[in-house]
Amino acid sequence: MAFQGCRFICVGISKPSIRPATASEGNRTNSSNPETIMLRLGAVSYLNTKPLIETLPERLGQSGELRLDLPSRLARDLAAGELDIALIPSVEYFRGGDEYEIISDAAIACRGPVWSVRVLSRVPMNKVRTLALDEGSRTSAAMSQVLLAEMHGLRPETVPFPIGSSPDEIDADALLMIGDRAMHPAPGKYQEIWDLGDRWCRWTELPFVFAMWVARRSAVADPQIRQRIEDALNVSRDEGLQQFETIAKREAAGHGLTIEDLHRYFAENLHFQLGNGERSGLAAFREKAEHLGLVPASHSPLQD
Amino acid sequence: MAFQGCRFICVGISKPSIRPATASEGNRTNSSNPETIMLRLGAVSYLNTKPLIETLPERLGQSGELRLDLPSRLARDLAAGELDIALIPSVEYFRGGDEYEIISDAAIACRGPVWSVRVLSRVPMNKVRTLALDEGSRTSAAMSQVLLAEMHGLRPETVPFPIGSSPDEIDADALLMIGDRAMHPAPGKYQEIWDLGDRWCRWTELPFVFAMWVARRSAVADPQIRQRIEDALNVSRDEGLQQFETIAKREAAGHGLTIEDLHRYFAENLHFQLGNGERSGLAAFREKAEHLGLVPASHSPLQD
Repeated sequence: MAFQGCRFICVGISKPSIRPATASEGNRTNSSNPETIMLRLGAVSYLNTKPLIETLPERLGQSGELRLDLPSRLARDLAAGELDIALIPSVEYFRGGDEYEIISDAAIACRGPVWSVRVLSRVPMNKVRTLALDEGSRTSAAMSQVLLAEMHGLRPETVPFPIGSSPDEIDADALLMIGDRAMHPAPGKYQEIWDLGDRWCRWTELPFVFAMWVARRSAVADPQIRQRIEDALNVSRDEGLQQFETIAKREAAGHGLTIEDLHRYFAENLHFQLGNGERSGLAAFREKAEHLGLVPASHSPLQD
Repeated sequence: MAFQGCRFICVGISKPSIRPATASEGNRTNSSNPETIMLRLGAVSYLNTKPLIETLPERLGQSGELRLDLPSRLARDLAAGELDIALIPSVEYFRGGDEYEIISDAAIACRGPVWSVRVLSRVPMNKVRTLALDEGSRTSAAMSQVLLAEMHGLRPETVPFPIGSSPDEIDADALLMIGDRAMHPAPGKYQEIWDLGDRWCRWTELPFVFAMWVARRSAVADPQIRQRIEDALNVSRDEGLQQFETIAKREAAGHGLTIEDLHRYFAENLHFQLGNGERSGLAAFREKAEHLGLVPASHSPLQD
């Protein structure tokens, strides 16, 4: 999804007695109430994220603040300990190693066509020699390379497909498009088009997980705090699922979509539950991406 | 759908003993077999038509020939008696009056969102003063005007939206887009987007019929001939419905769509049956379009 601008929602910040947390505070006990720990959460506000964060600021209450930012900054700040928890793409999770843990079964996944992640090829897919990668997503970039390797034994050369450029400016056999660009591909003649969600799910017979809530292990060591955040994330997801219609009405036209398009995207293309199948899909993706050298090799188990 | 080029399929023409019919032949009895009447059928080969005509040449056998042509030429040639039967848009059927009859319950209709017919508005839909009309479809043009009148009491000024032009070249409050252009609208900020199929079906609680097989009444006066053609059209539709997957595989990438997109379009967005609900929807459309002066007033019943 095109980045929707950078908004900050600091829950409780308007109440004079509650300070937002800062990176230097270490054990972030709120000054007005020693029981309240203010954790720092981050997420992007892409279309696919909206149901997960629609009511999150309320659900976090005084337990945490939610920052909306660019994906690259979220990954960097989580790695640097300047965020405690973030909704990060799978590939970023793989890179975090032992310091990270999945903290909720709220996630962004698919069990079939996902619509917003596509490879459009000017040659038959088994002849792709060069692949232009949408710079917006390293997870989808890895996913497309894994599928070309698995299904056709291909290791195409990759070239950038900058956000502002149109397909006809790019000299490559195939193009990876994500977000708005995939949902509205420029009409054109292609030999083959893959919906990567559909290809993944049919090839592996497993769901694909695009992103999940990941905590720095040290920030959620206290079981009570961990539980409070996990509950907030899960309840917020459950409430977001009830509000597809509202979110679709608000967001659709600004993305060039009808309300029905976006409702269908939320209700049919995306799944927001990290179940056993999703965890298996995530493990399979990590293994295949490691095998191709697209993410660092890891010897830690996928999940605790 | 963008016009796919003009192909002619003349069934039987390769057999020396069977001549294709010509307009001058009057009672077109085949020279090699006095029992065989070669009727002249016409259709466009837009995406939405494909399931209806996939096996039609075989099903017609020596009873008819199928010509694929531009919609404007089909309507003109049916009116002039140079075609006997054509798959024509609803508005063209309304214009034909008593000389026309619907000859099959194979049709192109929707019972909810249709995807390929949209109005994108830069202002709230109840403030539309100017409407740019896609020149490809008079039926969708009438449909959009009927809905703006019915739902918001609006009679916007209409301006052309030429096939080759992009939305940002058009100075209008709202734009009607059909076919590939609607299925891949340029990403942009709009205030409101209507899927006209969805709006029609929710507003009227009736299906919408885009096109149907219409015969010149005089050409199918013989009950046996009429039955033979009707059977061919219906069987061809039934076979086309079985072949969604094959058609989607062949057609998708050339339209910038995935196989799943196109399969869903055939299987979920479109309906190919002219049932009682569709006939009521067609009658309601005629009445409303007549009321606005978009089609000539008619005193004949909708169907025999």
